[in-house]
Amino acid sequence: MPHRYDVAVRWSDEDRLGHVNNSRYLTYTEDARLSWLVDSPAGNGSIILAHTEIDFVRPVHFAIGGELVVHTTVLAVGRSSCRLRQDVFHAADAASGAAADRARAVARTEHVLVCYDYGEERSRPWQEPERTWLLRWSAEGESR
Amino acid sequence: MPHRYDVAVRWSDEDRLGHVNNSRYLTYTEDARLSWLVDSPAGNGSIILAHTEIDFVRPVHFAIGGELVVHTTVLAVGRSSCRLRQDVFHAADAASGAAADRARAVARTEHVLVCYDYGEERSRPWQEPERTWLLRWSAEGESR
Amino acid sequence: MPHRYDVAVRWSDEDRLGHVNNSRYLTYTEDARLSWLVDSPAGNGSIILAHTEIDFVRPVHFAIGGELVVHTTVLAVGRSSCRLRQDVFHAADAASGAAADRARAVARTEHVLVCYDYGEERSRPWQEPERTWLLRWSAEGESR
Amino acid sequence: MPHRYDVAVRWSDEDRLGHVNNSRYLTYTEDARLSWLVDSPAGNGSIILAHTEIDFVRPVHFAIGGELVVHTTVLAVGRSSCRLRQDVFHAADAASGAAADRARAVARTEHVLVCYDYGEERSRPWQEPERTWLLRWSAEGESR
Repeated sequence: MPHRYDVAVRWSDEDRLGHVNNSRYLTYTEDARLSWLVDSPAGNGSIILAHTEIDFVRPVHFAIGGELVVHTTVLAVGRSSCRLRQDVFHAADAASGAAADRARAVARTEHVLVCYDYGEERSRPWQEPERTWLLRWSAEGESR
Repeated sequence: MPHRYDVAVRWSDEDRLGHVNNSRYLTYTEDARLSWLVDSPAGNGSIILAHTEIDFVRPVHFAIGGELVVHTTVLAVGRSSCRLRQDVFHAADAASGAAADRARAVARTEHVLVCYDYGEERSRPWQEPERTWLLRWSAEGESR
Repeated sequence: MPHRYDVAVRWSDEDRLGHVNNSRYLTYTEDARLSWLVDSPAGNGSIILAHTEIDFVRPVHFAIGGELVVHTTVLAVGRSSCRLRQDVFHAADAASGAAADRARAVARTEHVLVCYDYGEERSRPWQEPERTWLLRWSAEGESR
Repeated sequence: MPHRYDVAVRWSDEDRLGHVNNSRYLTYTEDARLSWLVDSPAGNGSIILAHTEIDFVRPVHFAIGGELVVHTTVLAVGRSSCRLRQDVFHAADAASGAAADRARAVARTEHVLVCYDYGEERSRPWQEPERTWLLRWSAEGESR
């Protein structure tokens, strides 16, 4: 089951086209990641965003009280990095607890996160509790 | 009783000082006004923001899941304009249904709204249902 | 002569109405203040924005390469605060070195700045070099 | 020679870490694309952003008057789409007219643009003047 984060779209998220501006998908997924990470085991490293890919699938229009939902899933865990999927849906398309149908996403994103030790100024391997926690959010973990 | 609007603070609302950036209070009160106006009687005019005053009372820090609340009250209704108060609170300070203690606001704002007829390209008087609706949100209306 | 700051308007500064969003005037004047303050004498205090007033005079539309100009003038210097005027113009209306015609401003703003000592956690009086520097930017200083 | 666009970084572009927020790179490259496209031949189609990839190479800190530069190059032109590279540099690293050293970029991005006919509600092939214009901005075109 993916992590779910609810986004309140703001009037000023739209641009002149009456669409949520493309840059806002990075804002929504950023806040979703912070919400997801709040329960992760604390290590002595920080998690850095190294790479992002976004498919802008369909435009979103602001509506009073309108909400989007971000579903976050771990795709793969490496030695000191992990690959994350974050799909953005209209709330109505993500209503159940299960993973929503990706075909209905308004935007699909993938990210590479790196565990970074600011003291040492380099990446460091995930510690075991961190790795275990990340794997709990993997789609494979889900089906087992 | 003021209109209540809940704001989800975003990570990127903060600036380098670790404070919600001053400009964001205009964003929060803008979304609160739109939420408030959604039930107003539809006339043939648009409502324009003509003037804003803000007291930045104390800094706000982002917290995961942290929320602010905007309380909106009508201060005065003129012929074709109205004066609005919008105070911003930590959710914990605005928990009850009643007006929160203004001394605890993180920001206090006042706004002049003007009813504008884009067809005629000038302001126009409030129509009676509009005026009646606005007065429902006045603090004085509340105490009667 | 007011301090001049050139603003590059961004596509995403506009909202659905095709107008620069109201909150952006706080962003433009914020960057103008930072640019203005860069040459101020360093004291042991920080300058805090305590209060802002904005007249939204006319809407601004994004244009590729379009620029706005912020003119900053000191209106009054108190013991530990000062009152600032910041008017926003289309670049064409602020072309000369002199103060532009305020009637042509797209937005007119006034701000109260407070000199704050974070160590003492309270405001502190301007030091003499700070006061002298501020007065150089006053409209009255200009006419002498 | 890539298209060059100068970005004025704003104080509020930074987040609590004192870094330009990740989402802003989409804003900078968006404005750079609009600046680049302003001289493109007008067809009856609109250009839509379908896909974006970003490498966040190193953090950027706000500095008064500090500037970034976006270099835009066409990587490939398809039947109705094109692939674009947009690298973001500190102004000092992009000073000459030539393409800057990609190793010094603070962020590297690639984008898929699609030519879209809103009337027909589908993509349409580039017209010949459009294709010719796009190819002028390709790195290969440059070396011939």
